[in-house]
Amino acid sequence: MTVVIKPDERLDDLQVGGLCIIQQPAGFRFGLDAVLLAHFVRLPAARVVDLGTGTGVLPLLLAHRGATYLTGIEINDAAADMARRSVQLNGLTRRIRIVHGDLRAIGALLPPGQADVVVANPPYRSLGHGKISRSPAIAQAKHELTCTLREVVAAAAYAVRYRGLVAMVHRPARLAEVLAVLTEHDLMPKRLRLVHPAAGRPARLLLVEARRGAATGLVVEPPLFIYQSDGHYSPEMAAHYAPQGVGL
Amino acid sequence: MTVVIKPDERLDDLQVGGLCIIQQPAGFRFGLDAVLLAHFVRLPAARVVDLGTGTGVLPLLLAHRGATYLTGIEINDAAADMARRSVQLNGLTRRIRIVHGDLRAIGALLPPGQADVVVANPPYRSLGHGKISRSPAIAQAKHELTCTLREVVAAAAYAVRYRGLVAMVHRPARLAEVLAVLTEHDLMPKRLRLVHPAAGRPARLLLVEARRGAATGLVVEPPLFIYQSDGHYSPEMAAHYAPQGVGL
Repeated sequence: MTVVIKPDERLDDLQVGGLCIIQQPAGFRFGLDAVLLAHFVRLPAARVVDLGTGTGVLPLLLAHRGATYLTGIEINDAAADMARRSVQLNGLTRRIRIVHGDLRAIGALLPPGQADVVVANPPYRSLGHGKISRSPAIAQAKHELTCTLREVVAAAAYAVRYRGLVAMVHRPARLAEVLAVLTEHDLMPKRLRLVHPAAGRPARLLLVEARRGAATGLVVEPPLFIYQSDGHYSPEMAAHYAPQGVGL
Repeated sequence: MTVVIKPDERLDDLQVGGLCIIQQPAGFRFGLDAVLLAHFVRLPAARVVDLGTGTGVLPLLLAHRGATYLTGIEINDAAADMARRSVQLNGLTRRIRIVHGDLRAIGALLPPGQADVVVANPPYRSLGHGKISRSPAIAQAKHELTCTLREVVAAAAYAVRYRGLVAMVHRPARLAEVLAVLTEHDLMPKRLRLVHPAAGRPARLLLVEARRGAATGLVVEPPLFIYQSDGHYSPEMAAHYAPQGVGL
């Protein structure tokens, strides 16, 4: 099997389990948020769906963590193509399927209520907040151009089975909205974790896990600090995969 | 002026500014949550309203922090009476007014939209969650017998001026509901702080501040840890008033 790496692409080492990933240095590259989400979500799970998989980092990391079958949906055809080639390169074609399609039309892509776990690292910014990148892939990954928070959650609610889990990463600025939209879709927030760059600093990311059809009642877990006061990764971060040059 | 301390009551030292408070050892006594809320809310403020003031700890502490005029509303007549006598004992009758009344009928007690800051340390437990105390004062303070979260927030929205602040303390289990109910009342959550007993432990309390008529956008502030790993109060806690025998 020949896998082509194109001239504008690069093969990056995921630094875990010998995995590698094809990315474009000038395009959207996965960040710490995807890595944190991959470590946050509760496994085992037989069937996992990743909504807006980009170049496929979450299916790759979750396959390594032990999820059995994974489906990544991606609207950007170049990203979906890179993700598919990365799956081939890592010899995971029997476990990971990349679907090039629009999660807003998920009913045409996947059957309802089949996933044990749905994950999503959606665009954080509503339109009208922040400058939109001239790179379509970066713009789609950062701004709600091709899907809003509500559309991502609706797709998750469609795909997840009763009592299955939906895990997301998002910005604390939108915490109220994230919790409200999940709840409206009968996805009850059960675990929340705030990620702070360091002790004494406001949170930069939130990790939330909701269970379909569960009762209300949220546990706010211990905060995660990325850096210690000496500037090194905290022990928990050091235990995770620590990608080169990936900032919070 | 003679202030009577009844046989079932005790005069407790608030350990700050020479303040004292009348409480019943067998009744509901203020806890760390009230102290944390008093330190969390942003001052200065000319006019403050405390919804469900109990024995008046929040008006006393906030008067010490510099708020000018404070009104505490309390439905339990014995608690309101103790609060009134504590205000007298501390020589604060010109600044603190205790109103014996029902916050669900706040329109009969206070004019609308006058407070710069409204604070509330409401009962945390919905009916049907946990055993209800046989002491009416404890039961009313811990369970939503005389007011629900929604009723407290509605009263706060009534009392606070446009662009004024509403600050509450509650349980993390109800975070989603707290944020949703505030937002529904045009009280936009702007600051959230989670209080953990220690690093590595789930949060036990949440402190939230909302601004009437503000845009969305929440800052999740650094977490507050009560205890250090050596079992002593964290530096931030030690800098606060540290009441004897008050646990989280």
